[in-house]
Amino acid sequence: MKNNSFIIKGDIIYSKSKMELSWYKDGYLVCEDGVSRGVYGDLSDIPESCRTLPIEDHTGKLVIPGMTDLHLHAPQYGFRGLWGDMELLDWLNIHTFPEEARYADSAYAKEAYAIFVDDMLHTATTSFAAFSSIHVPATELLMDLTEESGLRAYIGKVNMDRNSPDELREITEGSFSETLRWLSDVKERNYQNVRPILTPRFIPSCTDELMEKLGELIRETGLPLQSHLSENRSEISWVKELCPWSQSYGDAYEHFHCLGDLGNRTIMAHCVWSGDQEVELMKKNGVFIAHSPSSNNNIASGIAPVRKYLEKGLNVGLATDMSGGTTASILRIMTDALTASKLYWRLVDETAKPLTFPEVFYLGTVGGGAFFGKTGSFEEGYAFDAVVLSDEDLRTPLKDRLDPAERLERYCYVAGERPVDHKYVSGRKLL
Amino acid sequence: MKNNSFIIKGDIIYSKSKMELSWYKDGYLVCEDGVSRGVYGDLSDIPESCRTLPIEDHTGKLVIPGMTDLHLHAPQYGFRGLWGDMELLDWLNIHTFPEEARYADSAYAKEAYAIFVDDMLHTATTSFAAFSSIHVPATELLMDLTEESGLRAYIGKVNMDRNSPDELREITEGSFSETLRWLSDVKERNYQNVRPILTPRFIPSCTDELMEKLGELIRETGLPLQSHLSENRSEISWVKELCPWSQSYGDAYEHFHCLGDLGNRTIMAHCVWSGDQEVELMKKNGVFIAHSPSSNNNIASGIAPVRKYLEKGLNVGLATDMSGGTTASILRIMTDALTASKLYWRLVDETAKPLTFPEVFYLGTVGGGAFFGKTGSFEEGYAFDAVVLSDEDLRTPLKDRLDPAERLERYCYVAGERPVDHKYVSGRKLL
Repeated sequence: MKNNSFIIKGDIIYSKSKMELSWYKDGYLVCEDGVSRGVYGDLSDIPESCRTLPIEDHTGKLVIPGMTDLHLHAPQYGFRGLWGDMELLDWLNIHTFPEEARYADSAYAKEAYAIFVDDMLHTATTSFAAFSSIHVPATELLMDLTEESGLRAYIGKVNMDRNSPDELREITEGSFSETLRWLSDVKERNYQNVRPILTPRFIPSCTDELMEKLGELIRETGLPLQSHLSENRSEISWVKELCPWSQSYGDAYEHFHCLGDLGNRTIMAHCVWSGDQEVELMKKNGVFIAHSPSSNNNIASGIAPVRKYLEKGLNVGLATDMSGGTTASILRIMTDALTASKLYWRLVDETAKPLTFPEVFYLGTVGGGAFFGKTGSFEEGYAFDAVVLSDEDLRTPLKDRLDPAERLERYCYVAGERPVDHKYVSGRKLL
Repeated sequence: MKNNSFIIKGDIIYSKSKMELSWYKDGYLVCEDGVSRGVYGDLSDIPESCRTLPIEDHTGKLVIPGMTDLHLHAPQYGFRGLWGDMELLDWLNIHTFPEEARYADSAYAKEAYAIFVDDMLHTATTSFAAFSSIHVPATELLMDLTEESGLRAYIGKVNMDRNSPDELREITEGSFSETLRWLSDVKERNYQNVRPILTPRFIPSCTDELMEKLGELIRETGLPLQSHLSENRSEISWVKELCPWSQSYGDAYEHFHCLGDLGNRTIMAHCVWSGDQEVELMKKNGVFIAHSPSSNNNIASGIAPVRKYLEKGLNVGLATDMSGGTTASILRIMTDALTASKLYWRLVDETAKPLTFPEVFYLGTVGGGAFFGKTGSFEEGYAFDAVVLSDEDLRTPLKDRLDPAERLERYCYVAGERPVDHKYVSGRKLL
């Protein structure tokens, strides 16, 4: 028996399937060498080799798999919740771009990213995919801090060489050579939990030449990629102007081999207005859609047709998209996804059945977690990522009549943004 | 100088107008005998008679007027956040009605309402309008506990005598006589801050005879009234079947003198699907619309056209509508109202400009507060209702560059549901 082997006792909940939760009141969750050996209703059911492991007693608390946040902008964290009633372009120009430009200053980046990583540590998220800024030193700082925290992440230096403010617009060649420098630095650092991910901001801010170079780099390295897709309709028209030969925004990415068509894992954030052709491309390439309902509400982008994506069998995870989104909590995002799907059903398409609580829990755990490998479940063989939530002070006279799944639903609605009690990543206790 | 006279120092924010916030960094807010004497930038600006009052120092914290929650169901509080992915009718039958029926048991009501009132005490709400259940003892218990807490409230015994489950369906004569008994009891109790309000559940659950009796009672007493109006389309069709002579759902209420047409103050919750004729009736009668975006999202009712109501000059306040709504916090409801208005603009009517942060703050303070008299502002002459919020631990490297209004916006998005630090109602310090 190696390190990171123990048993957690508590009220354990995880996804049995896309449609159904599995829960155990006073159950036992076994971690062997950082990997789940499954959940058991009784100590005597645990495989003999693990039965004598030390027990961490979280009796009365909710124990769920760590959540995955599939899309966020780390340098935007400082101004989350500051809208000033702006629309997207004003918001980018007044808040986003000036703030991202500050990350050229490594001292500022260090102060800001220390807050971001420490706050993320206290959410229910154990794995996330983040945009950094264009700056290599700040990006490496963010990767160092994330690695130190024990969280699991893909983090990307942003590429942008057109249609951007002066202080954030790179020279094409410089953007690419800085990317190579960053990748080389990262390789030397031998991170355990943090990985690089190619991050062209989106087609409007990347020249064809830069996109082609990134596509070649994917062919050589197999690196994953993250970007934005079909967030709003004027953006889609813009891409059509910039790439008049494309059949869709997604087709433009694929043209540059940046839509997962080379077999590399790829995240596309938003997909609010994706048409059939684009959806087919994403399906063919196994693209992960980062559904970001808080952001889509705040920027008035619209509502992504998640039910349709699920019915077509696409990969979907949940994302905060800070700071288009205002919350750091995927538990809160789960409820935003639920209400967004209800309004979509009511106002847009009455054939699109609203999402269910088990479904959004699946999306926030296994759905997005699949991007990171076997994470997001307590089934045997999954990375042992777990968070412990306390709902004792969420008083209700109904308490004794609620099962753990009901308590979790209530927690998400009422307390989703509170710091978690404990957190484990691959069996390592971070909190 | 009488009791309840003092000065608060802090970062003070209130509505200057429907469209604009007023704020003072390190300002002084003067309370004289429970009433605001205004806000001053400097001690020397304070009227001489008040300049030597004791100072409560909340330097560095946000100080805002107490919020008003214009519609909620107190006996539904126990199961907020428990949806189980049900639609309205299932939710009513599985959660709402069985739970409301439990309030026949006064011991249960006492346990449950003690939690409800104590939790409300820690929100930013200082005034609320609540439905109780049909039960007189439980309603009086709720009124007693609310009075003890120091919160200001209108609370109503519910009337319902048709289309309701057996255990909650009253006999018409009994419903009315119980109402009279309750009103007589309440009169004897001489509450300072709590008042009764007539509460027919909604037209589908009240016979014409009962509605007529309540209308007569309004004519005799001038009592205020609260009910539900045009929450969803099948409800509206149902009312049309029940009252085929009516021109609209609102017209049916007016027919029974239950739409404020006798000059009594009236709250109608939701108004998601109100047509022009109904809107005109509400305007004519000065009805207060209780906008409940969290509930309207959760029950998939739709989005109320608040911009239209404001342009027409109707009275609008904000409401949690627990437990159709899941949050107890009007600060959180403010952000729900913002995002709902953005989606309405994007998905329903591109001429309906989204609400702004100063507007939703106005709705949550002065807008709904007007139902209770002069509450919701720090202008001279308003009841001194204030809450103190701490945003110190909401870390951001931008902190020093944010003004109090920006900090408040951020607080609403990021921490809206947290317990407040301090609370005052009519100058009495409750927390």
